[in-house]
Amino acid sequence: MPRLDRRTLLGATAALPAAAMTGANAAAATQPAQSVDVEVPVTATLAQWLVRYDPAALPPDVQKETARTLLNWVGVAVGGSREPAVNKAIAALTPFSGPPQASIFGRRERMDVLNAALMSGIASHIFDFDDTHLKTIIHPAGPVASALLALAEYRPVSGRDFVAALALGVETECRIGNAVYPEHYAMGWHITGSCGPFGAAAAVGKVLGLDEQRMIYALGLAATQPVGLKIMFGSMTKSLHPGRAAQNGLTAALLAQQGYTTDDAPLEGKDGWGQALSTRHNWHEVVDGLGSRWEALLNTYKPFACGIVTHPAIDAAIQLRDENHLQPDQIDVVELRVHPLVLSLTGKTDPHVGLEGKFSIYHIVAIALITGKAGEKQFSDAAVNDPAAVALRKRVKPIVTEGVKPDQVDMVIKLKDGRTLTKHIDHAVGSTEKPMTDAQLEAKFSDLAEGILPPDQVRKLMDLCWHAGTLADAGDITRAGAARA
Amino acid sequence: MPRLDRRTLLGATAALPAAAMTGANAAAATQPAQSVDVEVPVTATLAQWLVRYDPAALPPDVQKETARTLLNWVGVAVGGSREPAVNKAIAALTPFSGPPQASIFGRRERMDVLNAALMSGIASHIFDFDDTHLKTIIHPAGPVASALLALAEYRPVSGRDFVAALALGVETECRIGNAVYPEHYAMGWHITGSCGPFGAAAAVGKVLGLDEQRMIYALGLAATQPVGLKIMFGSMTKSLHPGRAAQNGLTAALLAQQGYTTDDAPLEGKDGWGQALSTRHNWHEVVDGLGSRWEALLNTYKPFACGIVTHPAIDAAIQLRDENHLQPDQIDVVELRVHPLVLSLTGKTDPHVGLEGKFSIYHIVAIALITGKAGEKQFSDAAVNDPAAVALRKRVKPIVTEGVKPDQVDMVIKLKDGRTLTKHIDHAVGSTEKPMTDAQLEAKFSDLAEGILPPDQVRKLMDLCWHAGTLADAGDITRAGAARA
Repeated sequence: MPRLDRRTLLGATAALPAAAMTGANAAAATQPAQSVDVEVPVTATLAQWLVRYDPAALPPDVQKETARTLLNWVGVAVGGSREPAVNKAIAALTPFSGPPQASIFGRRERMDVLNAALMSGIASHIFDFDDTHLKTIIHPAGPVASALLALAEYRPVSGRDFVAALALGVETECRIGNAVYPEHYAMGWHITGSCGPFGAAAAVGKVLGLDEQRMIYALGLAATQPVGLKIMFGSMTKSLHPGRAAQNGLTAALLAQQGYTTDDAPLEGKDGWGQALSTRHNWHEVVDGLGSRWEALLNTYKPFACGIVTHPAIDAAIQLRDENHLQPDQIDVVELRVHPLVLSLTGKTDPHVGLEGKFSIYHIVAIALITGKAGEKQFSDAAVNDPAAVALRKRVKPIVTEGVKPDQVDMVIKLKDGRTLTKHIDHAVGSTEKPMTDAQLEAKFSDLAEGILPPDQVRKLMDLCWHAGTLADAGDITRAGAARA
Repeated sequence: MPRLDRRTLLGATAALPAAAMTGANAAAATQPAQSVDVEVPVTATLAQWLVRYDPAALPPDVQKETARTLLNWVGVAVGGSREPAVNKAIAALTPFSGPPQASIFGRRERMDVLNAALMSGIASHIFDFDDTHLKTIIHPAGPVASALLALAEYRPVSGRDFVAALALGVETECRIGNAVYPEHYAMGWHITGSCGPFGAAAAVGKVLGLDEQRMIYALGLAATQPVGLKIMFGSMTKSLHPGRAAQNGLTAALLAQQGYTTDDAPLEGKDGWGQALSTRHNWHEVVDGLGSRWEALLNTYKPFACGIVTHPAIDAAIQLRDENHLQPDQIDVVELRVHPLVLSLTGKTDPHVGLEGKFSIYHIVAIALITGKAGEKQFSDAAVNDPAAVALRKRVKPIVTEGVKPDQVDMVIKLKDGRTLTKHIDHAVGSTEKPMTDAQLEAKFSDLAEGILPPDQVRKLMDLCWHAGTLADAGDITRAGAARA
């Protein structure tokens, strides 16, 4: 521990403000809770662990899940790379960008490391199809992978160290999120943007080899640069948040490397991050069990490009379609017994544009039965106006049913030939209980990359992600993600 | 008004969370107060005013005070330009910087506009000697002038438009500060960093000629990128805040120019800036009297490079010295009757390093009597260890006295020849009641720039600031601020 001076210790154990929920916040939290402080300096303990952690010690299951996190993130970064938000951000910042140090996934432009991290970070969140740490709703890879991959192309790092840094970054941001969720989120913060800079700073600080004091500075500089208001949901700025969080975390680690100083207790101290950005915090979540329990293992990947309440129905529809080789015109009616949230969140009966389709359980079930998928392409304007989809969605009948849980569905398909097909889903694919398989992650990746990168490049990119931990130079992943033409 | 749709209006008038002070926050606020909403959309009303404001209509007194704000800011930016925080930030970010588009005050390096704004912004706050809007403790020029001056060197703007944009930027950040002070500050936010991006975005958006919708986006992108925790006071990161606020506001305006979208009510809406960053807000402060009352007129400039509670004593000491041509060895004892805060904040009797001198009323009074100044040089390591200063400070006797206000002092100097000199100060120089004169601002500037820029360049730079409003190209100010060798 670099400087366990009196002030640091006081900072860690001082009584910080107890939960004082505003009206708006109280509604979001299930129950008010007290803040919990710990007897060790929070930031310094985390920094020490990050600095001393031996990349060779990363457990195999964490290595494996980190590779899955990486592969899923690269897929969504490629998939979002040609969207208007990315075009606009590149147009705005290119005149000010530095040397072409790093690739942007799915694009031909190269920018300096900081801007490349921003662009890939924006791209990766546009479809809201990236990974999710369900305990906090943080999308962990965005801030960390954007920063690390851009840096890796400029400053060589071994695959082993890269994977460990990615895991440590995810661990850092998710643990800090755990400490303040849900009150912090209820205040109005987009938690991926506000906790993300810590993850990026920790990961980049690790590959830069910062000492403990400088790792504290990196976390401090991340703390003072949070990003992201929830009011931006529905605008391009939601996607800015993970990108800017990556950039802020990178900037934090680079400044810290030069010895740019901060306070030593930026998380837990008076007038620090915990006090200013949340009405409650439990610092045990940050410092307990470091290296023995891993938030990285709780990361999940969405198989479908729409809200999670619809996933059981999509899972059931695709299973019934595939098991029975169903054609849309065989179907008379589709009945599904669902939790009330399904109709309150996705009850739109007659969507006209692609985005509305994501809020229509009628379209969602119809398109899943027709295509066997519910990826971004199934929510295009063309898809929601496809005559076959329009015809079938009129025969989809959701029935709100007591006792059906949010992650359950009962689907009954009556065929025109008189047969009845049924499917009960307890946990949809993509949930913690039933994670996407590696093959499903690959199929999602290929689907997102279609039309952006050629199939041979997609195959190579996925292989690099799977084998990231053994690469001599992790920057090869970033290089392989650039569009060739 | 671009889009006064239902959601925007709802956002503006919805009941936002009432004041819910935490224990820590309640102590800082004089009394809990209720949030006050208004019947117009806050962000859109402000954006409309900014876009429609005619630079030719800027009142003469606002023009004049803005020139004083500019001159004071350029002086502190030059003065801080060679400090370690600036050296470290330049070292960290140069490898990633874009074309050499803009000068950094007091330095030879040129960087891209965004990085140049960051560096000058950092430099200008290092001595904590920049301008202060006393109602909010915002240092208004830092975020706005840093951004505008860097941009002006790259993208020509007339002096008239430049001065108006600077005034509008100051107005924007101070009004938003008024709406949330002191609760926002008490939560832990360094208000210069958290409100600063709005000022920079408004000013840059004005010179870029954004339309009303894009000005809303610029303010929205500023809202989602606040900077600055108060825990950083005492570290280099305090100075990062105005610099990064400038950079964030610039980035916001540049993205907005390309049509990068945000919500339309980022200040006042649910899950917006006001909700997430303060326990109370009064939106009348933002939208009432736009163009008729000017916060810019309330800006103040510190004559002395130390805490404001000591300023009455310094003012008295310098007046007595100059009126009586005092030499230190004539002085037997200096008695001063002071407010209790003077001893609780600056009661250090025996400082050893320069920074400690700022917290010693004994050193402060002694050095002011010896040199007739209390600038940055009077708080060097050499100054606090100067034998004459050490000898004289032992004869300084502060006496806490009931009835003496924080802005008052009664000083009695007993001379060895038996004479007694007295001085009563009601308001120290630099206060709103007794502002620094233009000549005093010039003397402060020259003192700060000594050893960094040659006297002829200092003279030229000050003249450019005074005549900013009539320049054909405001970028001339930035160019004239670069070190030649």
